[in-house]
Amino acid sequence: MAFPAAGQTPAAAASATTGKAGEVQEGLAAFYGTRLNGRKTASGEKYDQNAMSAAHKTLPFGTRVRVTNTRNGRSVEVRINDRGPTQPNGIIDLSRAAAAKLGMLRAGNVPVRLEVLNVAPAAEPRRRAP
Amino acid sequence: MAFPAAGQTPAAAASATTGKAGEVQEGLAAFYGTRLNGRKTASGEKYDQNAMSAAHKTLPFGTRVRVTNTRNGRSVEVRINDRGPTQPNGIIDLSRAAAAKLGMLRAGNVPVRLEVLNVAPAAEPRRRAP
Repeated sequence: MAFPAAGQTPAAAASATTGKAGEVQEGLAAFYGTRLNGRKTASGEKYDQNAMSAAHKTLPFGTRVRVTNTRNGRSVEVRINDRGPTQPNGIIDLSRAAAAKLGMLRAGNVPVRLEVLNVAPAAEPRRRAP
Repeated sequence: MAFPAAGQTPAAAASATTGKAGEVQEGLAAFYGTRLNGRKTASGEKYDQNAMSAAHKTLPFGTRVRVTNTRNGRSVEVRINDRGPTQPNGIIDLSRAAAAKLGMLRAGNVPVRLEVLNVAPAAEPRRRAP
């Protein structure tokens, strides 16, 4: 399987680049399988299939968002700890547990509405080596 | 997310390395999410979340295996088109559709029995460039 490198993530949809609380974005959600459980995410945390986590293209790690499956109205709160998606029209990749709460494991990708709850401060810029 | 490179796949359990029809292997099954749908597998085929496909460490691409969820007795036939798993005790990574048939999407990883149905001939060795 060819995987995307972190630097290859395409630019996010314009609506999400400001990253303010209350901001709303609409598009498709995908989910992680159990295959990657325990592997490192872009934030350095390990992917935990039972945690409420997700990948977003631009929101700072630690940001909390509410994701609503617009097909059935179910919603879940997740914390951003990875970068993605790379799929066309994809706005968020959810952990298996979050996808289960949204009732999308059998359906596959579903349309969602994403609302930014609180934006985590961006990580400190790395200092240049002396 | 840090992904395994194809060359980093650890050696398979001894029981599956001979690759003969009728061979049986037991261990854990994981599954792919929808996140990777459309991306290339190690065989060159694209991952299709709705197809009955799977990743195995050593069996030649095109080999068909029967996978049985030993928790509920449900089984499915899949075709090997990718390399994996990298998880401890993992013997097969299943497509979302195959995992759905085994009733393991909510459960996560489950113990399975794998039976080799027919082994595909190994790919032709590549000719050296003139």
